[in-house]
This record gives sequence, structure tokens and C-alpha cells, in this order.
Amino acid sequence: MTKHQIAIVVGSLRRDSINRKVARSICAFTPHALDCKIVEIGDLPHYNQDQESNPPEAYARFRQQISAVDGILFCTPEYNRGMPGVLKNAIDVGSRPYGQSVWDKKPAAIISASPGGIGGFGANHQLRQACVFLNMPVMQQPEAYLGSVTDAQFDEEGRLREGPLKELVLQLAGAFADWVDIIVRSRKLLAEDAAHAAKAAAE
Amino acid sequence: MTKHQIAIVVGSLRRDSINRKVARSICAFTPHALDCKIVEIGDLPHYNQDQESNPPEAYARFRQQISAVDGILFCTPEYNRGMPGVLKNAIDVGSRPYGQSVWDKKPAAIISASPGGIGGFGANHQLRQACVFLNMPVMQQPEAYLGSVTDAQFDEEGRLREGPLKELVLQLAGAFADWVDIIVRSRKLLAEDAAHAAKAAAE
Amino acid sequence: MTKHQIAIVVGSLRRDSINRKVARSICAFTPHALDCKIVEIGDLPHYNQDQESNPPEAYARFRQQISAVDGILFCTPEYNRGMPGVLKNAIDVGSRPYGQSVWDKKPAAIISASPGGIGGFGANHQLRQACVFLNMPVMQQPEAYLGSVTDAQFDEEGRLREGPLKELVLQLAGAFADWVDIIVRSRKLLAEDAAHAAKAAAE
Amino acid sequence: MTKHQIAIVVGSLRRDSINRKVARSICAFTPHALDCKIVEIGDLPHYNQDQESNPPEAYARFRQQISAVDGILFCTPEYNRGMPGVLKNAIDVGSRPYGQSVWDKKPAAIISASPGGIGGFGANHQLRQACVFLNMPVMQQPEAYLGSVTDAQFDEEGRLREGPLKELVLQLAGAFADWVDIIVRSRKLLAEDAAHAAKAAAE
Repeated sequence: MTKHQIAIVVGSLRRDSINRKVARSICAFTPHALDCKIVEIGDLPHYNQDQESNPPEAYARFRQQISAVDGILFCTPEYNRGMPGVLKNAIDVGSRPYGQSVWDKKPAAIISASPGGIGGFGANHQLRQACVFLNMPVMQQPEAYLGSVTDAQFDEEGRLREGPLKELVLQLAGAFADWVDIIVRSRKLLAEDAAHAAKAAAE
Repeated sequence: MTKHQIAIVVGSLRRDSINRKVARSICAFTPHALDCKIVEIGDLPHYNQDQESNPPEAYARFRQQISAVDGILFCTPEYNRGMPGVLKNAIDVGSRPYGQSVWDKKPAAIISASPGGIGGFGANHQLRQACVFLNMPVMQQPEAYLGSVTDAQFDEEGRLREGPLKELVLQLAGAFADWVDIIVRSRKLLAEDAAHAAKAAAE
Repeated sequence: MTKHQIAIVVGSLRRDSINRKVARSICAFTPHALDCKIVEIGDLPHYNQDQESNPPEAYARFRQQISAVDGILFCTPEYNRGMPGVLKNAIDVGSRPYGQSVWDKKPAAIISASPGGIGGFGANHQLRQACVFLNMPVMQQPEAYLGSVTDAQFDEEGRLREGPLKELVLQLAGAFADWVDIIVRSRKLLAEDAAHAAKAAAE
Repeated sequence: MTKHQIAIVVGSLRRDSINRKVARSICAFTPHALDCKIVEIGDLPHYNQDQESNPPEAYARFRQQISAVDGILFCTPEYNRGMPGVLKNAIDVGSRPYGQSVWDKKPAAIISASPGGIGGFGANHQLRQACVFLNMPVMQQPEAYLGSVTDAQFDEEGRLREGPLKELVLQLAGAFADWVDIIVRSRKLLAEDAAHAAKAAAE
């Protein structure tokens, strides 16, 4: 299995965000398959189409970082039954200018962790709705509505302690690595098919 | 009918936003019933719970402006099948700190205008999902997915030209004025009922 | 407070459905304010517009029962992250023929109970989305995603045992009674306003 | 490219359903790649878990037909801003008994056609939400909200006339054939990887 480059986008800016901790755990669990890096979104100005003629420097930085990777892992809390505005803004920034979206075709997974019982279901599915438009194949199962997540489930260095949450996150990490590999390899197969067909037609 | 104070929140920062123009039309059509004012959201820093101990000045300004009104009109485009990040961020800012949401109980209407055919259906319903949590009674009908809206439907001063869109927006303006009035009056009735009951119990 | 007639629509056909038990508890908690009756939906044939020229008898029975009430309480499980088909079919049957929907303007509340943690969030919000089109004002708060509900929380006669679930359902019952009363009274006020205005114009 | 077996599930029971016509067009456009067959859902009794001990014959027939295919094409109208109840019921029937869902892992595409402008956006995304739980990889692009579809766009034999809708449906047909092929081949690759790994471990 080739090692794939993954950008992790965290929907919370809070320093001690549990979603950030979950994101780091995913990285720690898949060192052989995934090379993960958190891409920051807190400095991206609100998207404004009027600025595209002279875009903020942070837009260029963010778009370049997302362009460079093979897949995306979103880890997000839920605010008011939906995605945090800061995360949706990052989605919006990456999707423009029209026709130059950096999200296009990148395999993704969505994890929503929260201290409440519902586990960010609303945020999770709103993000999925965006991924349809963005043409990002999103891992369907296992779904990752992580409810009742608290700081106590992580040790002092932010690593998941033994327990059911760690088991689930391990499973998610493995499934995500497989998913990215499937989509990346499939796209290569399709490209080869097209090349063969073009060559055959030319002969 | 008492004249109600309305805050209009526009989901696009673009100077020539068609949603801003639609918002202004609603105001122009209901001078007898609604006193409307656009409340700006572009300067609100991304919500970060860590900042609540010393919140940005723009948060206080925004929360005060929303607190002061009787109802809210949202006019928004759709970005990537959902609400623009900048609008969701304003929602998030107004909803915190926990237990002090400025949106609570305010009647609202949601208009989504776009140049495409779908008329912002995705943005419209994601905003409705937030309003459930925020305890904002949202006008159900007429729904306002305004599709195929272009600059040509407005004159040089941004006023709607005669035509089907103007007819629809006029109808929306009237229905929204009624909706705000219903909810505001109902809340007064409920409060009076409770006062009567308390008085009766005391006698 | 006038006593209002309420139709309860249960999204599960299972004989021992926990949603049916929750529905019965709501009725038992509001005898002074609400006169509740479960309206059955299991015998409604799948909606087919071709049959409207000679509709199934069950359609007429159902439409009459819904027409007769002041408000609607939905209690539903979640199937596959959405509303059960049988419940959506009842919605569809009541909404037709076009222009004669029996749901129009009726105040409603939505409770989704499930043995899992998420409490039917997906079903709950899909039903809310239908209610926008159906012009049904739905109670926003308290939201009722009842998670981890089991048979053990009910006694042999299907009544809620003492505990946090009973407390929550009691609160929901009271809020729903208030909500129905608000909407019914508001509509009367609006009608009176219109009558006054018409009389004044005629004089 | 191997020829794949496809089940088409149509969300409308109406004899002259435009979604049925669109479904037939997809089949007609991909005879080399897809072997399509409409699987009927109108005779499936409403799902009731109590019946699983002695399920209706139609359940067995439907589950067998879906089990037998490589992929699924959904073509559906929107009723009341969501999926028709009859379609959701078919989803529910196929998903049970628990652990024996016939939808599992099958690649899918979702087309929503309607005479209105919005093109079934609400139905389309509710179905996508179910597919997450059902573990069905759904084609993301092109999205297929087919708005303003009328009988006039089909000839007497139900074939699409020349025009923009035909162009779009042709594009959808090709993309769907590619999508099914990608997912089916990827699963084979993964299975081979696992077999290699097992063999290597055994040696």
C-alpha cells in the first residue's frame, strides 16, 4: 500500500478541542498508511467574491496545502445543529474561484465528536451535503458520530486512553486508510483505461 | 398593528449581492409595519470559545444589535449546497456564551436567492435546522427559494423592477410582517395568562 | 385555556413501539389541555396520484381524521437515518390532492425516540423539512431527540416510570399544549383583525 | 469493461411518471456497460418489524432482486420536500432484518426529476443520507436535480427527444457506468490484497 498524504481539517479553533485530539489519534494510528498533517483554517478571512481579483495571502496558502494532498479528514464539533461557520468558510474558500476547487475528487472521511449524546449528526451530514457538490467521495461506513466524548478519555499528551472510544477510532483510522487507497487506485485504473482506449483508437 | 424592529442578516459580503438587494426590497415594501436595518457580519472574527473571557468588540456590537430587535430576516445565497460560512459564523457568535443566545424566541423568515434554478434550497434548510436549536419560530410559507435571480431584475438604484419576482417579494414581505406580529402578540398573551394565573393563585 | 383536539401520528407499526408508548404518555400528562387520539396509518396504501380519481377508502378516513383536529403530534423512530416510509406515506396521503392538504396551518410537535444514542435526529429533521412545505408551525424547543429509550422505562401498562425521561416528556407535553394554544389563538386574532379592517373599509 | 447488472428503483407509482421515463433512458443509453432492470416497489407492504418472523412474500422477492445486482439507480420525484413514502419504505424493507441489508456496499446514483424548478433537491439529499447508513457509495458528480422536466421532452415511446435534458442524461448515464465499474473493481482489488496478505502470512 502506497503511503498517502492527508490533510486534516479541524472544525474548532479551541486550543483543547476534543476534535483536534481525535484528529491526532487518527494520525498516530496509521503511520504506515497515512502521512497526516493538520491544516489550519482560523486565519482565513470570510470568503468574499469581490476579493478574488486580489485574494488574501491565507487563501493561497490554504488552497496550496489542500491541493497537495491525496485525501481529507474532517474532524468537527457541531454548533447550533450544523457545521461551525469557521469550517464552512474553509470549505467555501477552497471551492473557489469557480472551476478551480481544490477539493475536487479528493477522498474524505468525516468525524464529528461532541460531549453530547448526538455526536454531531447535524454537522456531519451538512458537511456530507457540501461534499456532493465538491465531488469528494466520502467514506460511508463506519459512520463517526462520536458522542459523550470528554477530556477524560485522553491522557496528558492528548492520546486516547484504552476503552471503547479508542477501539472505534482505531477502526475508523483503518477504514479511512482503505478508503483513500481505493479511490486513489481507482482513479489511476480509470486513467489507464482511457489511455489504452486512446492508444487503441490511434492505431 | 405595532411597528416591529427587524434586523436583516445578509449571507453574502459581495458589494453587489442580489441577496442584499432583495433584503432592501423587503424593507421598502413594509414601511408601515416593519422598521428594518441590515446588521453587518463581515467583521465578526471566527467564533472561538477560548475568546469568551475577553470577546472581540465586534461580538458585543453584533449581540447588542440582535438583542434589540423584534424579529430577524435572513437573506442568503448558497455556497456549496449550504449556508455561507460567514453567515453560519454570525449565527454561532450570536448563540454564545451558552445560555445567553441573542436569537432566542425571535420570529424569523429565511429567503435564499441565487442565479441558479435551485434557489438556495440547501442553504435555506440548513439555516432552518439551526433555528430549531436557537428556538426561533421561522415562517413556513411562503417558502422563498428565489431561483434565476439576476441583476437585470433590479433597477440602477437596486429596486425590484415590475415582474413576477417583485410580486413574490411583495407577498413575502406581507407574510413576514404578519408572522412577526403573530409571534410577538402571542408571547404577550402567554405572559398575561401567566400573570393572571399567578394573581389568582395569590388571592 | 380551551381544550384542543390533537391527532397523534406514530411512525412505527410495531405493537410494542416505544414511540407509541411515549405518545400515550403525552396524552396522559395533558388531560386538562389536550384531547389526544392516535390516528392509525398502517392501512394507507402507498400514495399513487393515478388513484386520486377514485381514492382508497382509507385515504378519505385518514384525511377526515386529520382535518378534524387542532394540532398534530408526531412520535417516530428513525429508520436508516430518516423517517420510516410508512410515516412519510401518511404525510404524502394527507397532503393531496394538490391544494387540499389536510395538514395546512396545523401546529405540530415532533418527538423521535430510539434505543440508540442519537435519538432519531435524522428522522426528526426530515419531518421538519416536510412541515415547511405543509405550512405547519412546528414547536422548536424543547427539541425531542429521545435517545437510549428502552421498554424498561415503562411499566406493565405502558406508563412512564419515574425518572429523567418522564421529567422530559412532562416538559414536552406542557410546551406542546402551550404551542398549540398560541398558534390557534393567534390565527383567531389575525382573522379578527381582518374582519375589523373589512368592516372599517365598508363603513 | 465488464457489463454490470443494475436495479433501477423508481420513487413514483404513477403510470406516466417522468422519473420512470428518465430511468428507461439511462438504460437505453448504456447497453454496452449496464444491464438495467426496473425493480417494482408498489406491492411492498409497509415495513413492520413484527412481521419479520413471517415476512410478506413481496419482501423476499424484493430482497432477492436487489441482492442479485451490482449497483442501484434511484430515480425519484420529490413529495413534500422529501422522498416519497413508497420509496423510503422500499429502502426500509431492503435494509432488514438487522445485519442482512441487501443494499450493503452496492454503488448507486440518485436522479431526482420534477416539473418544478428545484429538481427534487430535498428528496435527493434525504436519499443520500440513508445511503450513508446503508453503506452504499453514491456517485457525487454530476448531481442530478432535473428541474422543469415535462412529458413534452419525451416522444410517444417515452424516449428523450434531442435537447439539453437528453445531453445531461447521456452524461449521467456514462458517469454512472464508470462509477459502478470503479467501485466493483476496487472491491476486487481490496479482496485480492487481503488474500495476498493472508497467503504471505501463512507461508
